[in-house]
Amino acid sequence: MKISARNVLPGKILSIVRGPVTTEVTLQVAAGVEIVATITSTSAESLKLVEGGQAYGLIKASSVMIGTD
Amino acid sequence: MKISARNVLPGKILSIVRGPVTTEVTLQVAAGVEIVATITSTSAESLKLVEGGQAYGLIKASSVMIGTD
Amino acid sequence: MKISARNVLPGKILSIVRGPVTTEVTLQVAAGVEIVATITSTSAESLKLVEGGQAYGLIKASSVMIGTD
Amino acid sequence: MKISARNVLPGKILSIVRGPVTTEVTLQVAAGVEIVATITSTSAESLKLVEGGQAYGLIKASSVMIGTD
Amino acid sequence: MKISARNVLPGKILSIVRGPVTTEVTLQVAAGVEIVATITSTSAESLKLVEGGQAYGLIKASSVMIGTD
Amino acid sequence: MKISARNVLPGKILSIVRGPVTTEVTLQVAAGVEIVATITSTSAESLKLVEGGQAYGLIKASSVMIGTD
Repeated sequence: MKISARNVLPGKILSIVRGPVTTEVTLQVAAGVEIVATITSTSAESLKLVEGGQAYGLIKASSVMIGTD
Repeated sequence: MKISARNVLPGKILSIVRGPVTTEVTLQVAAGVEIVATITSTSAESLKLVEGGQAYGLIKASSVMIGTD
Repeated sequence: MKISARNVLPGKILSIVRGPVTTEVTLQVAAGVEIVATITSTSAESLKLVEGGQAYGLIKASSVMIGTD
Repeated sequence: MKISARNVLPGKILSIVRGPVTTEVTLQVAAGVEIVATITSTSAESLKLVEGGQAYGLIKASSVMIGTD
Repeated sequence: MKISARNVLPGKILSIVRGPVTTEVTLQVAAGVEIVATITSTSAESLKLVEGGQAYGLIKASSVMIGTD
Repeated sequence: MKISARNVLPGKILSIVRGPVTTEVTLQVAAGVEIVATITSTSAESLKLVEGGQAYGLIKASSVMIGTD
Protein backbone atom coordinates (compact mmCIF):
# COMPACT_ATOMS: atom_id res chain seq x y z
CA MET A 1 0.00 0.00 0.00
CA LYS A 2 1.11 3.55 -0.79
CA ILE A 3 0.06 5.96 1.93
CA SER A 4 -0.42 9.72 2.25
CA ALA A 5 1.76 9.95 5.36
CA ARG A 6 4.62 12.16 4.21
CA ASN A 7 7.10 10.57 6.59
CA VAL A 8 7.99 6.94 5.93
CA LEU A 9 11.31 6.18 7.60
CA PRO A 10 12.92 2.75 7.22
CA GLY A 11 14.92 1.50 10.20
CA LYS A 12 15.94 -1.28 12.55
CA ILE A 13 13.94 -2.17 15.66
CA LEU A 14 16.12 -1.48 18.71
CA SER A 15 13.64 -2.32 21.46
CA ILE A 16 10.06 -3.34 22.17
CA VAL A 17 8.36 -2.67 25.54
CA ARG A 18 4.97 -4.39 25.84
CA GLY A 19 2.12 -3.26 28.11
CA PRO A 20 -1.37 -4.74 28.37
CA VAL A 21 -2.86 -2.35 25.76
CA THR A 22 0.05 -0.22 24.50
CA THR A 23 3.49 -1.27 23.22
CA GLU A 24 6.47 1.03 22.76
CA VAL A 25 8.77 0.42 19.79
CA THR A 26 12.13 2.14 19.20
CA LEU A 27 13.52 2.26 15.65
CA GLN A 28 16.95 3.41 14.50
CA VAL A 29 16.40 5.30 11.23
CA ALA A 30 19.97 6.59 10.74
CA ALA A 31 23.22 6.59 12.71
CA GLY A 32 22.32 8.39 15.94
CA VAL A 33 18.70 9.00 14.92
CA GLU A 34 16.02 7.03 16.77
CA ILE A 35 12.23 7.18 16.54
CA VAL A 36 9.92 5.99 19.34
CA ALA A 37 6.36 4.84 18.55
CA THR A 38 3.55 3.72 20.82
CA ILE A 39 1.15 1.37 19.07
CA THR A 40 -1.47 -1.06 20.31
CA SER A 41 -0.10 -4.35 21.63
CA THR A 42 -2.45 -6.09 19.20
CA SER A 43 -0.73 -4.34 16.28
CA ALA A 44 2.70 -5.18 17.59
CA GLU A 45 1.76 -8.88 17.69
CA SER A 46 0.00 -8.78 14.36
CA LEU A 47 3.06 -7.25 12.67
CA LYS A 48 5.28 -9.89 14.40
CA LEU A 49 7.77 -7.19 15.39
CA VAL A 50 11.08 -8.47 16.78
CA GLU A 51 14.11 -6.62 18.08
CA GLY A 52 16.72 -6.41 15.33
CA GLY A 53 14.10 -6.65 12.59
CA GLN A 54 13.43 -4.08 9.87
CA ALA A 55 10.41 -1.78 10.00
CA TYR A 56 9.22 1.68 9.00
CA GLY A 57 8.25 4.61 11.19
CA LEU A 58 5.25 6.34 9.60
CA ILE A 59 4.23 9.86 10.63
CA LYS A 60 1.55 12.14 9.22
CA ALA A 61 2.94 15.63 8.51
CA SER A 62 0.22 17.24 10.63
CA SER A 63 1.60 15.36 13.67
CA VAL A 64 5.06 16.91 13.40
CA MET A 65 5.94 20.12 15.23
CA ILE A 66 8.94 22.35 14.64
CA GLY A 67 11.21 23.71 17.38
CA THR A 68 14.07 26.18 17.33
CA ASP A 69 16.76 27.05 19.86
CA MET B 1 11.95 23.85 27.68
CA LYS B 2 12.26 20.06 28.06
CA ILE B 3 9.29 18.28 26.53
CA SER B 4 7.70 14.86 26.83
CA ALA B 5 7.71 14.29 23.06
CA ARG B 6 9.98 11.27 22.69
CA ASN B 7 11.12 12.28 19.23
CA VAL B 8 13.22 15.45 19.00
CA LEU B 9 15.19 15.39 15.76
CA PRO B 10 17.63 18.20 14.93
CA GLY B 11 17.99 19.07 11.25
CA LYS B 12 18.31 21.65 8.50
CA ILE B 13 15.30 23.32 6.87
CA LEU B 14 15.21 22.30 3.19
CA SER B 15 12.00 24.01 2.14
CA ILE B 16 9.04 26.05 3.38
CA VAL B 17 5.71 26.18 1.50
CA ARG B 18 3.33 28.80 2.92
CA GLY B 19 -0.46 28.71 2.62
CA PRO B 20 -2.99 31.12 4.16
CA VAL B 21 -3.45 29.02 7.33
CA THR B 22 -1.04 26.07 7.02
CA THR B 23 2.68 26.01 6.17
CA GLU B 24 4.65 22.93 5.16
CA VAL B 25 8.25 22.62 6.39
CA THR B 26 10.76 19.99 5.23
CA LEU B 27 13.73 19.19 7.48
CA GLN B 28 16.76 17.03 6.71
CA VAL B 29 17.55 15.11 9.91
CA ALA B 30 20.28 12.83 8.51
CA ALA B 31 21.81 12.09 5.12
CA GLY B 32 18.87 10.90 3.03
CA VAL B 33 16.35 11.24 5.89
CA GLU B 34 13.80 14.03 5.59
CA ILE B 35 10.85 14.93 7.83
CA VAL B 36 7.85 16.94 6.62
CA ALA B 37 5.76 18.98 9.08
CA THR B 38 2.61 21.03 8.58
CA ILE B 39 2.28 23.80 11.14
CA THR B 40 0.21 26.97 11.29
CA SER B 41 1.52 29.83 9.18
CA THR B 42 1.44 31.96 12.33
CA SER B 43 3.88 29.56 14.02
CA ALA B 44 6.16 29.53 11.01
CA GLU B 45 6.38 33.32 11.12
CA SER B 46 6.72 33.45 14.87
CA LEU B 47 9.64 30.98 14.78
CA LYS B 48 11.24 33.02 11.94
CA LEU B 49 11.93 29.83 10.00
CA VAL B 50 14.17 30.24 6.94
CA GLU B 51 15.40 27.72 4.37
CA GLY B 52 18.88 26.57 5.29
CA GLY B 53 18.30 27.31 8.98
CA GLN B 54 18.53 24.82 11.85
CA ALA B 55 15.40 23.46 13.54
CA TYR B 56 14.02 20.40 15.33
CA GLY B 57 11.26 18.06 14.25
CA LEU B 58 9.23 17.11 17.34
CA ILE B 59 6.88 14.11 17.31
CA LYS B 60 4.86 12.56 20.12
CA ALA B 61 5.36 8.78 20.25
CA SER B 62 1.61 8.18 20.06
CA SER B 63 1.60 9.85 16.61
CA VAL B 64 4.08 7.36 15.13
CA MET B 65 2.91 4.21 13.38
CA ILE B 66 4.99 1.18 12.46
CA GLY B 67 4.95 -0.50 9.05
CA THR B 68 6.57 -3.68 7.77
CA ASP B 69 7.12 -5.05 4.25
CA MET C 1 3.33 -2.41 3.34
CA LYS C 2 1.53 -3.72 6.43
CA ILE C 3 0.96 -0.96 8.98
CA SER C 4 0.21 -0.76 12.69
CA ALA C 5 -2.78 1.57 12.19
CA ARG C 6 -5.67 -0.50 13.48
CA ASN C 7 -8.17 1.13 11.19
CA VAL C 8 -7.73 0.47 7.47
CA LEU C 9 -11.03 1.14 5.71
CA PRO C 10 -11.39 0.54 1.96
CA GLY C 11 -13.73 2.89 0.10
CA LYS C 12 -14.53 5.00 -2.94
CA ILE C 13 -13.39 8.62 -3.27
CA LEU C 14 -16.47 10.86 -3.33
CA SER C 15 -14.80 14.26 -3.46
CA ILE C 16 -11.45 16.04 -3.37
CA VAL C 17 -11.10 19.72 -2.34
CA ARG C 18 -7.60 21.09 -2.97
CA GLY C 19 -6.03 24.02 -1.11
CA PRO C 20 -2.49 25.36 -1.51
CA VAL C 21 -1.06 23.17 1.30
CA THR C 22 -3.95 20.98 2.48
CA THR C 23 -6.40 18.82 0.50
CA GLU C 24 -9.64 17.37 1.83
CA VAL C 25 -10.66 13.89 0.64
CA THR C 26 -14.05 12.24 1.30
CA LEU C 27 -14.29 8.43 1.10
CA GLN C 28 -17.39 6.26 1.21
CA VAL C 29 -16.48 3.18 3.26
CA ALA C 30 -19.96 1.61 3.45
CA ALA C 31 -23.49 2.53 2.43
CA GLY C 32 -24.16 5.77 4.33
CA VAL C 33 -20.74 5.82 6.02
CA GLU C 34 -18.28 8.48 4.88
CA ILE C 35 -14.82 9.36 6.16
CA VAL C 36 -13.19 12.78 5.63
CA ALA C 37 -9.40 13.14 5.60
CA THR C 38 -7.19 16.20 5.32
CA ILE C 39 -3.80 15.38 3.84
CA THR C 40 -1.07 17.49 2.26
CA SER C 41 -1.76 18.55 -1.32
CA THR C 42 1.61 17.03 -2.22
CA SER C 43 0.40 13.63 -0.98
CA ALA C 44 -2.86 13.93 -2.86
CA GLU C 45 -0.96 14.54 -6.09
CA SER C 46 1.61 11.87 -5.40
CA LEU C 47 -1.12 9.26 -4.80
CA LYS C 48 -2.88 10.42 -8.01
CA LEU C 49 -6.23 10.46 -6.20
CA VAL C 50 -9.28 10.92 -8.46
CA GLU C 51 -12.97 11.16 -7.62
CA GLY C 52 -14.58 7.78 -8.12
CA GLY C 53 -11.30 5.94 -7.50
CA GLN C 54 -10.63 3.37 -4.78
CA ALA C 55 -8.61 4.22 -1.69
CA TYR C 56 -8.22 3.39 2.01
CA GLY C 57 -8.85 5.56 5.02
CA LEU C 58 -6.15 4.82 7.62
CA ILE C 59 -6.56 5.87 11.24
CA LYS C 60 -4.35 5.16 14.26
CA ALA C 61 -6.44 3.86 17.18
CA SER C 62 -5.06 6.58 19.47
CA SER C 63 -6.68 9.21 17.20
CA VAL C 64 -10.18 7.82 17.65
CA MET C 65 -12.49 9.11 20.40
CA ILE C 66 -15.67 7.51 21.66
CA GLY C 67 -18.94 9.38 22.19
CA THR C 68 -22.25 8.36 23.72
CA ASP C 69 -25.72 9.92 23.66
CA MET D 1 -22.75 18.99 21.84
CA LYS D 2 -22.04 19.49 18.13
CA ILE D 3 -18.36 19.01 17.34
CA SER D 4 -15.99 20.00 14.54
CA ALA D 5 -14.70 16.44 14.09
CA ARG D 6 -15.80 15.61 10.56
CA ASN D 7 -16.09 11.91 11.28
CA VAL D 8 -18.85 10.88 13.69
CA LEU D 9 -19.65 7.21 13.13
CA PRO D 10 -22.43 5.53 15.10
CA GLY D 11 -21.93 1.86 15.93
CA LYS D 12 -22.15 -1.04 18.37
CA ILE D 13 -19.42 -1.81 20.89
CA LEU D 14 -17.95 -5.22 20.05
CA SER D 15 -15.22 -5.40 22.67
CA ILE D 16 -13.49 -3.49 25.46
CA VAL D 17 -9.94 -4.31 26.62
CA ARG D 18 -8.96 -2.44 29.78
CA GLY D 19 -5.39 -1.60 30.83
CA PRO D 20 -4.29 0.44 33.85
CA VAL D 21 -4.20 3.75 31.90
CA THR D 22 -5.42 2.93 28.37
CA THR D 23 -8.52 1.02 27.23
CA GLU D 24 -9.12 -0.33 23.74
CA VAL D 25 -12.65 -0.17 22.35
CA THR D 26 -13.84 -1.84 19.11
CA LEU D 27 -16.98 -0.50 17.40
CA GLN D 28 -18.87 -1.99 14.47
CA VAL D 29 -19.99 0.97 12.32
CA ALA D 30 -21.39 -1.01 9.36
CA ALA D 31 -21.57 -4.64 8.31
CA GLY D 32 -17.93 -5.70 8.08
CA VAL D 33 -16.58 -2.27 9.08
CA GLU D 34 -14.97 -1.98 12.52
CA ILE D 35 -13.22 0.95 14.18
CA VAL D 36 -10.71 0.54 17.03
CA ALA D 37 -10.14 3.36 19.53
CA THR D 38 -7.73 3.69 22.42
CA ILE D 39 -9.02 6.03 25.10
CA THR D 40 -8.08 6.59 28.73
CA SER D 41 -9.48 4.00 31.13
CA THR D 42 -10.97 6.89 33.10
CA SER D 43 -13.00 7.94 30.04
CA ALA D 44 -14.15 4.40 29.41
CA GLU D 45 -15.48 4.20 32.96
CA SER D 46 -16.96 7.68 32.88
CA LEU D 47 -18.88 6.90 29.67
CA LYS D 48 -20.06 3.58 31.22
CA LEU D 49 -19.19 1.72 28.02
CA VAL D 50 -20.43 -1.87 27.83
CA GLU D 51 -20.05 -4.51 25.15
CA GLY D 52 -23.15 -4.55 22.98
CA GLY D 53 -23.97 -0.91 23.75
CA GLN D 54 -24.28 1.92 21.22
CA ALA D 55 -21.55 4.52 20.82
CA TYR D 56 -19.92 6.82 18.27
CA GLY D 57 -16.41 6.75 16.88
CA LEU D 58 -15.21 10.35 16.50
CA ILE D 59 -12.19 11.19 14.35
CA LYS D 60 -10.75 14.57 13.39
CA ALA D 61 -10.15 14.79 9.63
CA SER D 62 -6.51 15.75 10.17
CA SER D 63 -5.95 12.35 11.85
CA VAL D 64 -7.04 10.37 8.81
CA MET D 65 -4.53 9.24 6.17
CA ILE D 66 -5.27 7.96 2.70
CA GLY D 67 -3.73 4.83 1.17
CA THR D 68 -3.88 3.34 -2.29
CA ASP D 69 -2.92 -0.08 -3.66
CA MET E 1 -23.18 13.89 23.08
CA LYS E 2 -20.77 12.88 25.85
CA ILE E 3 -17.28 12.22 24.52
CA SER E 4 -14.18 10.40 25.67
CA ALA E 5 -11.92 13.40 25.06
CA ARG E 6 -10.65 14.21 28.55
CA ASN E 7 -10.24 17.89 27.80
CA VAL E 8 -13.45 19.85 27.17
CA LEU E 9 -12.76 23.55 27.76
CA PRO E 10 -15.57 26.11 27.46
CA GLY E 11 -14.58 29.54 26.17
CA LYS E 12 -15.26 32.56 24.01
CA ILE E 13 -14.20 32.75 20.35
CA LEU E 14 -11.63 35.53 19.99
CA SER E 15 -10.80 35.16 16.31
CA ILE E 16 -11.44 33.08 13.20
CA VAL E 17 -9.01 32.98 10.25
CA ARG E 18 -10.43 31.16 7.22
CA GLY E 19 -8.38 29.44 4.50
CA PRO E 20 -9.67 27.43 1.55
CA VAL E 21 -9.50 24.08 3.42
CA THR E 22 -8.37 24.91 6.96
CA THR E 23 -9.70 27.50 9.43
CA GLU E 24 -7.93 28.68 12.59
CA VAL E 25 -10.05 29.41 15.65
CA THR E 26 -8.79 31.07 18.87
CA LEU E 27 -10.74 30.54 22.09
CA GLN E 28 -10.28 32.23 25.45
CA VAL E 29 -10.83 29.54 28.09
CA ALA E 30 -9.83 31.58 31.17
CA ALA E 31 -8.38 35.02 31.87
CA GLY E 32 -5.06 34.98 30.01
CA VAL E 33 -5.49 31.41 28.73
CA GLU E 34 -6.12 30.98 24.99
CA ILE E 35 -6.43 27.82 22.91
CA VAL E 36 -5.84 27.75 19.14
CA ALA E 37 -7.51 25.10 16.97
CA THR E 38 -7.22 24.36 13.27
CA ILE E 39 -10.33 22.68 11.91
CA THR E 40 -11.69 22.20 8.39
CA SER E 41 -13.38 25.26 6.91
CA THR E 42 -16.43 23.07 6.28
CA SER E 43 -16.69 22.37 10.03
CA ALA E 44 -16.29 26.04 10.88
CA GLU E 45 -19.21 26.89 8.60
CA SER E 46 -21.30 23.97 9.73
CA LEU E 47 -20.89 24.98 13.40
CA LYS E 48 -21.74 28.62 12.46
CA LEU E 49 -18.82 29.89 14.55
CA VAL E 50 -18.70 33.66 15.07
CA GLU E 51 -16.22 35.86 16.90
CA GLY E 52 -17.53 36.60 20.37
CA GLY E 53 -19.60 33.40 20.46
CA GLN E 54 -19.30 30.58 22.99
CA ALA E 55 -17.62 27.27 22.08
CA TYR E 56 -15.61 24.41 23.55
CA GLY E 57 -12.05 23.38 22.83
CA LEU E 58 -11.88 19.56 22.81
CA ILE E 59 -8.57 17.74 23.10
CA LYS E 60 -7.86 14.02 23.39
CA ALA E 61 -5.43 13.34 26.26
CA SER E 62 -3.06 11.44 23.93
CA SER E 63 -2.57 14.68 21.93
CA VAL E 64 -1.26 16.62 24.92
CA MET E 65 2.45 16.78 25.69
CA ILE E 66 4.10 17.93 28.91
CA GLY E 67 7.02 20.35 29.11
CA THR E 68 9.16 21.54 31.98
CA ASP E 69 11.59 24.42 32.35
CA MET F 1 13.48 25.50 22.89
CA LYS F 2 10.75 27.52 21.14
CA ILE F 3 8.19 25.25 19.53
CA SER F 4 5.54 25.58 16.82
CA ALA F 5 2.79 24.14 19.04
CA ARG F 6 0.37 27.04 19.33
CA ASN F 7 -0.86 25.98 22.75
CA VAL F 8 1.67 26.17 25.59
CA LEU F 9 -0.21 26.30 28.88
CA PRO F 10 1.68 26.66 32.17
CA GLY F 11 0.15 24.93 35.17
CA LYS F 12 0.52 22.87 38.33
CA ILE F 13 0.61 19.07 38.30
CA LEU F 14 -2.44 17.79 40.20
CA SER F 15 -1.98 14.05 39.70
CA ILE F 16 0.14 11.41 37.99
CA VAL F 17 -1.16 7.90 37.23
CA ARG F 18 1.58 5.55 36.02
CA GLY F 19 1.03 2.48 33.84
CA PRO F 20 3.66 0.13 32.40
CA VAL F 21 3.92 2.07 29.10
CA THR F 22 1.60 5.08 29.45
CA THR F 23 1.31 7.66 32.26
CA GLU F 24 -1.57 10.07 32.76
CA VAL F 25 -0.78 13.58 34.01
CA THR F 26 -3.36 16.16 35.13
CA LEU F 27 -2.39 19.86 35.10
CA GLN F 28 -4.32 22.80 36.50
CA VAL F 29 -3.84 25.68 34.02
CA ALA F 30 -6.26 28.17 35.59
CA ALA F 31 -8.79 28.17 38.43
CA GLY F 32 -11.24 25.44 37.44
CA VAL F 33 -9.43 24.58 34.20
CA GLU F 34 -7.60 21.23 34.08
CA ILE F 35 -5.77 19.55 31.20
CA VAL F 36 -5.15 15.78 31.07
CA ALA F 37 -2.20 14.37 29.09
CA THR F 38 -1.15 10.80 28.42
CA ILE F 39 2.57 10.52 27.78
CA THR F 40 5.00 7.60 27.82
CA SER F 41 6.07 6.48 31.27
CA THR F 42 9.66 6.91 30.12
CA SER F 43 8.99 10.61 29.43
CA ALA F 44 7.30 11.07 32.79
CA GLU F 45 10.39 9.68 34.53
CA SER F 46 12.81 11.58 32.36
CA LEU F 47 11.03 14.88 33.09
CA LYS F 48 11.02 14.00 36.84
CA LEU F 49 7.38 15.04 37.11
CA VAL F 50 6.00 15.27 40.66
CA GLU F 51 2.57 16.16 41.96
CA GLY F 52 2.49 19.81 42.96
CA GLY F 53 5.28 20.70 40.53
CA GLN F 54 5.08 23.20 37.68
CA ALA F 55 4.81 22.07 34.06
CA TYR F 56 3.38 23.07 30.69
CA GLY F 57 0.66 21.40 28.66
CA LEU F 58 1.63 21.59 24.98
CA ILE F 59 -0.92 20.99 22.24
CA LYS F 60 -0.59 21.31 18.46
CA ALA F 61 -3.44 23.39 17.02
CA SER F 62 -4.33 20.60 14.57
CA SER F 63 -5.13 18.35 17.57
CA VAL F 64 -7.78 20.68 18.96
CA MET F 65 -11.44 20.32 17.97
CA ILE F 66 -14.22 22.83 18.50
CA GLY F 67 -17.64 22.00 19.92
CA THR F 68 -20.80 24.05 20.34
CA ASP F 69 -23.98 23.50 22.34
